[in-house]
Amino acid sequence: MPLFYQPQIQQGISFLDLEESRHAIQVLRLREGDSIQIVDGEGILYSARITKADAKKCLFEIIERKVIERRKCLVHIAIAPTKNIDRTEWFVEKAVEIGVEKITFFQCQHSERKVINLERIQKVAVSAMKQSGQAWLPSIEGLVDFNTVLTAKEKEKFIAHVDSNNPLHLKDAYTKNSEYVVLIGPEGDFSQQELEQAQQNSFKKVSLGANRLRTETAALAACHILALQ
Amino acid sequence: MPLFYQPQIQQGISFLDLEESRHAIQVLRLREGDSIQIVDGEGILYSARITKADAKKCLFEIIERKVIERRKCLVHIAIAPTKNIDRTEWFVEKAVEIGVEKITFFQCQHSERKVINLERIQKVAVSAMKQSGQAWLPSIEGLVDFNTVLTAKEKEKFIAHVDSNNPLHLKDAYTKNSEYVVLIGPEGDFSQQELEQAQQNSFKKVSLGANRLRTETAALAACHILALQ
Repeated sequence: MPLFYQPQIQQGISFLDLEESRHAIQVLRLREGDSIQIVDGEGILYSARITKADAKKCLFEIIERKVIERRKCLVHIAIAPTKNIDRTEWFVEKAVEIGVEKITFFQCQHSERKVINLERIQKVAVSAMKQSGQAWLPSIEGLVDFNTVLTAKEKEKFIAHVDSNNPLHLKDAYTKNSEYVVLIGPEGDFSQQELEQAQQNSFKKVSLGANRLRTETAALAACHILALQ
Repeated sequence: MPLFYQPQIQQGISFLDLEESRHAIQVLRLREGDSIQIVDGEGILYSARITKADAKKCLFEIIERKVIERRKCLVHIAIAPTKNIDRTEWFVEKAVEIGVEKITFFQCQHSERKVINLERIQKVAVSAMKQSGQAWLPSIEGLVDFNTVLTAKEKEKFIAHVDSNNPLHLKDAYTKNSEYVVLIGPEGDFSQQELEQAQQNSFKKVSLGANRLRTETAALAACHILALQ
């Protein structure tokens, strides 16, 4: 059954937005009376029925409401966006499939990319959420500066950095069912000053394995390590 | 220092191939006497010096030879190529970064893609090997038919399939430091007949987590789970 995304159903919204309406009526050719599923991105999966097959504003009525519990851990990835934005969008798609609660884009000293199209990236996340059959949409924020990500409130804080003197792997560094933030640097890595600042703010340096990983691969590896608990 | 790929140095080759020569001389503007590093894809990392800066056939002399041991496990991913070939190429790049020894592409009943450009995919693998600083190039084969992958000789054999009656996760299904093959189906999944054939050939059904993953995401997740041991 086709799955749509429509936020704020609990606040009274009873129609699909323009893009989802168009997809339902023009692309999928759904009609009045057809059954659909809708997620609100906040943990509710609705079974619904189309009551007005309008390609601009498709109305529906709710048949059933199912609460989907969030998983027990909370993963926040803070990442410097890649020079080639496709790589960042790819990361967002894959991270949402694998599992992530929050993504923050930040700028730092060696960042090569100074702008991102947050709206476009959020669409990638919505699409991946639907594709992977999930009811929770991760929050995606940015660009913020490096000092802002240092104020992250998660209980366990990590910064991905290969330090041959201290090769603590993320898989051995976290405790289960907790809240985590992992900082992933740009192609040119963090500066020495940023690494020190992070450590002063209780971020632990962690490795993600023996191979040298691209920024977006490192970020996905971190998500997956924390998803495997 | 720039890293190049040149196979068969042990068999006496002492020049870079056309593409690598062009990259060294025309793009990087290297000259006679410049130091380079070369991997042969079979576990040897060479330090070398350019002796003739020819953009068609760059000659070098070996200064030092370092043997890089293979990791203790052997991961073979057999995957039905995706309809959109970019997703398959993406998988190859990321799998090589994370760690994989062999990739086989196969066709099965629900395959949507009937052809692949193996040469192009092998170039993606070479590029990812160099990018991630590795000396071993995975072997990449295909397209073969489904019956051929069923004859795989690895000690531990898995087929990725979500079976709600038997949700054995790959992470709990393998033993360490072994040889593995994991079969990853196409967008339309394996047929019932193929699942049965695989089981008759000692392939164990495994899950890769709670979320529904795209073909290429599932394949990468399998690589990463086995790399984390």
